[in-house]
Amino acid sequence: MTYRAPINDILLSLNHGAGLAAAVKAGHYGDFDGDITAAVLEEAGKFAGDVLAPLNKVGDEHGIKLDNGTVTTAPGWPDAYRQWTAAGWNAVSGPEAFGGQGLPLAINAACTEIWSASNVAFGLCPLLTLSAIEALDAHGSDELKAIYLEKLVTGEWTGTMQLTEPNAGSDVGALRTRAEKQGDGTYRIKGTKIFITYGEHDMTDNIVHFVLARLPDAPSGTKGISLFLVPKFMVNADGSLGARNDIHASGVEHKLGMHASPTCTMTMGDKGGAVGYLVGEENQGMRCMFTMMNQARLGVGLEGVGIADRAYQQALAYAQERRQGKAVGRKGDGMDPIIVHPDVKRMLMQMRSLTAAARTICYATAVALDVSARATDPKVRADAAARGALLTPIAKAFSTDIGNEVAYLGVQIHGGMGFIEETGAAQHYRDARITSIYEGTNGIQSIDLVTRKLGANGGASVWALTEELSGIVKQVETSNDPAFGTTGAKLRDALAALDRAGKWLLERLATAPNDALAGATPYLRLFGATLGGCMLAGEALAAKAHGDSEPQRYVALARFFAENIAVQAPSLEKTVTDSADAVTGADAVLAG
Amino acid sequence: MTYRAPINDILLSLNHGAGLAAAVKAGHYGDFDGDITAAVLEEAGKFAGDVLAPLNKVGDEHGIKLDNGTVTTAPGWPDAYRQWTAAGWNAVSGPEAFGGQGLPLAINAACTEIWSASNVAFGLCPLLTLSAIEALDAHGSDELKAIYLEKLVTGEWTGTMQLTEPNAGSDVGALRTRAEKQGDGTYRIKGTKIFITYGEHDMTDNIVHFVLARLPDAPSGTKGISLFLVPKFMVNADGSLGARNDIHASGVEHKLGMHASPTCTMTMGDKGGAVGYLVGEENQGMRCMFTMMNQARLGVGLEGVGIADRAYQQALAYAQERRQGKAVGRKGDGMDPIIVHPDVKRMLMQMRSLTAAARTICYATAVALDVSARATDPKVRADAAARGALLTPIAKAFSTDIGNEVAYLGVQIHGGMGFIEETGAAQHYRDARITSIYEGTNGIQSIDLVTRKLGANGGASVWALTEELSGIVKQVETSNDPAFGTTGAKLRDALAALDRAGKWLLERLATAPNDALAGATPYLRLFGATLGGCMLAGEALAAKAHGDSEPQRYVALARFFAENIAVQAPSLEKTVTDSADAVTGADAVLAG
Repeated sequence: MTYRAPINDILLSLNHGAGLAAAVKAGHYGDFDGDITAAVLEEAGKFAGDVLAPLNKVGDEHGIKLDNGTVTTAPGWPDAYRQWTAAGWNAVSGPEAFGGQGLPLAINAACTEIWSASNVAFGLCPLLTLSAIEALDAHGSDELKAIYLEKLVTGEWTGTMQLTEPNAGSDVGALRTRAEKQGDGTYRIKGTKIFITYGEHDMTDNIVHFVLARLPDAPSGTKGISLFLVPKFMVNADGSLGARNDIHASGVEHKLGMHASPTCTMTMGDKGGAVGYLVGEENQGMRCMFTMMNQARLGVGLEGVGIADRAYQQALAYAQERRQGKAVGRKGDGMDPIIVHPDVKRMLMQMRSLTAAARTICYATAVALDVSARATDPKVRADAAARGALLTPIAKAFSTDIGNEVAYLGVQIHGGMGFIEETGAAQHYRDARITSIYEGTNGIQSIDLVTRKLGANGGASVWALTEELSGIVKQVETSNDPAFGTTGAKLRDALAALDRAGKWLLERLATAPNDALAGATPYLRLFGATLGGCMLAGEALAAKAHGDSEPQRYVALARFFAENIAVQAPSLEKTVTDSADAVTGADAVLAG
Repeated sequence: MTYRAPINDILLSLNHGAGLAAAVKAGHYGDFDGDITAAVLEEAGKFAGDVLAPLNKVGDEHGIKLDNGTVTTAPGWPDAYRQWTAAGWNAVSGPEAFGGQGLPLAINAACTEIWSASNVAFGLCPLLTLSAIEALDAHGSDELKAIYLEKLVTGEWTGTMQLTEPNAGSDVGALRTRAEKQGDGTYRIKGTKIFITYGEHDMTDNIVHFVLARLPDAPSGTKGISLFLVPKFMVNADGSLGARNDIHASGVEHKLGMHASPTCTMTMGDKGGAVGYLVGEENQGMRCMFTMMNQARLGVGLEGVGIADRAYQQALAYAQERRQGKAVGRKGDGMDPIIVHPDVKRMLMQMRSLTAAARTICYATAVALDVSARATDPKVRADAAARGALLTPIAKAFSTDIGNEVAYLGVQIHGGMGFIEETGAAQHYRDARITSIYEGTNGIQSIDLVTRKLGANGGASVWALTEELSGIVKQVETSNDPAFGTTGAKLRDALAALDRAGKWLLERLATAPNDALAGATPYLRLFGATLGGCMLAGEALAAKAHGDSEPQRYVALARFFAENIAVQAPSLEKTVTDSADAVTGADAVLAG
């Protein structure tokens, strides 16, 4: 089946759940005209449904081929990429000075969800280009920008992020790729990178690699890492392509999913070293890379949302068509569609509500990043930056965790057919699996949340957020809408649990950091469940207030999430606060 | 890496968690000598590690081939199957009168875990033969038994279970395969079955199919189904093989996992109809099939346990070797194995404790089934039968749910390497996915638990079990062992939650059955988490009492489960009791 972008849900989430409308109204988006949002998303949905979605399965089945350093993508992919750039989709949020449309990240976030839902392996390529654009724009010299930025913004060339090496994965500081300065100001780079997404492909004439490497006298660890721009083909003064640079795909991985996305081993130095240009300062590469990674992390979170929505749409359609058994109490012959069975309804509601919650968390992250860059008031910018920093690990980890869970349920609803590759449900399940690993494993995100985001300012960013959420819960309680069921009580309990767990973690961070680290993953889940629950409740209230034609379905969705997902908060709190000894004392068990 | 059967854990689970030692001591196993258990399992572990484990990846990579009705299994598989039957492993629990060793199901359950851990796609074949043996032994005529039973017990021939058709999956009663009685007492069967595991293969000379079909004048639904034995090759009076019967593999599925196990479309009737022999009475096929299915359901639960243990062993080995980052507080250079990181410890403990809990639930089911058949006191037999019936859906669904979760974590611990097929972690993840679907989806198991097992006798089976579990919790509380942490309190809360949820469901079953059905899945999870937690606590107490050399590691394991898994019980209770309206009222959401 194909994919239809859920424009109504997206708009409600973006404008009201994530706060875009309020931020625009408050003037934080300058002269951005919020009225165009719907039109952009409608067009994105059309492109995704018409061009990208039909290639999703083709890509999975054909995969990619590496032959003598050249990667061939699946049939139709290079053409789809050309259509993509021609329609301007690569340039949505790119800087206007370099050919971009300068639209908010929040709009692009919704687009990213749509690309990921229609064809996640395709969408991954521009996602990385986007990160490259951001790093180059923020840290590159004017010369580098003049040559490379517009090509990346339009998508005429794509970008890669090259961090990982065989012995440097989560521990980036351990990387060994070497860069030596040449007399002409360039650098010669030698080394091997692995797991490089779209490190080589046939969709564009050139590829712009962003490579982390170490200078000869650099300090050890992350303090001695520099970022280099390494083009596949050198660029002449007139912008034409010159010599082939000494960076080559020497292998591709055979992966569980994302078959259409080439995951390359990149070798530099077979012919004396790849020519690289320093981006930012020497030994400041991690700082530059973090610029790229935050954007990329949000993007990966949106992949989780997109895969989840696609899996949901497919499972819903199947459940509406497939007939097995009879509804309880129905007389007469014949079978009913399986959607009548409460257990199937439960799975579908779980899929939809988890997806909706993750969507709004991601969009809210994008709005915060927008406001941090666009607002005029420095206090507003600073607060938004703190909010964006806080939300990023949750957007990445919660959304990709639920992406996997939702794809799992999508297979389950298909029964035996779900296990058959032809059905397509299994592809979502396989594709989703990498999202909780790459761009920082979800464990790393949890540690980031606890140590850097909660810990950085004594929890101030967290308390500011939960106070806002508490306001939403109060509105639910005073709405007296019986359709909310026990939503208010469940969210109130969840907020209290989140609050206590956060305080406990702050205290342990100071006195027993391993205890805090042991609780990081359940804390992130607790945070996501509470935040998502409050946001969905806020959207339901907004749907009622803004005259949605069927606001009660958003109330029902928020209620389901509160009563089934947010309700886990008190147990998750206890997992954080009561189980540190069980975790840190695991050595005897694991040794035997 | 290879697989080593965790004999110590298995013995503790079997003898003390699952109660085999006590049942033997009470005389319920007749003259079975419990002392041989360890020796049998040691040998099983050796066979699994030496013969089956090395073929697991081979099977995944090669898969099977169908050519003109003939299925070729992966290299080495037919030979391994010959070794399997020669060593007597097919006959462990088979009836002694027909070449079996007559050992308890509980022993075979532990063996099934071991086969599944080493090579789940291989182990699936004898698992189905075992079900066939049980149905034939219980319901077949003496003539049929004389011809077929010993061949199945020894494994010289394999068995299949043929229920599913394109329009009859969970709703077996919808099947359309036709059987017509012939003058000679045999039946001619015509129809198509799908998803038939090992429906065709090259490991044995003959295959004995057990096919559900409908007689011309049969009542509609499940009341009009009969069970037939349909041999691939007819058997002559002297036991030699005769003509090829009219049942053929017309297709095989391209699946997410279990690549080495042929999943066949079986066509009967191209040449006038397959010759079949009635098993049991006409129109009593569902009763016969349930005999097979309960055994098979426990077997599938054990597949979940086996895959989980294999995934755990592989992840543990990786975490002990792979070096990234440094332990908090450690001075000096170099990286530590990732097992030092609390988040990795948490994942490993989650994997191990979930596996251990599911193991004991499955073994306890087997002990109950044994006692129901072997004890002399009718009251003891009846109670054990009720216990076995109650535990079967939990053994199937909880164990396969956690099999998937554990395999997911196994991939996660491998980081990016986990997504690469070469690593092997992804195979477990793919293979596990079918276990929560086949032999009755886990949703069906939950409904069975609520409507038939809880509902059948006003909850009496459940209260009898929870009273026993409460006794374990009391022992934990009175042990005053600080290493138990908050185990006692967590399990006490869990039991109370299970009790309340059960009472709520019983009330709703009578008044609002859809509400009860809506809560079925969280109730089963609540049951598994509570039961598993109490059982692990019981094992820890037993390890201390019986002089295990390191009892504290079982205490630590039980504690981890109580504080991280059983702790979810109160939230799951609320999900059961508070969210029925949200589920049954989902229609407006799902329509939009």
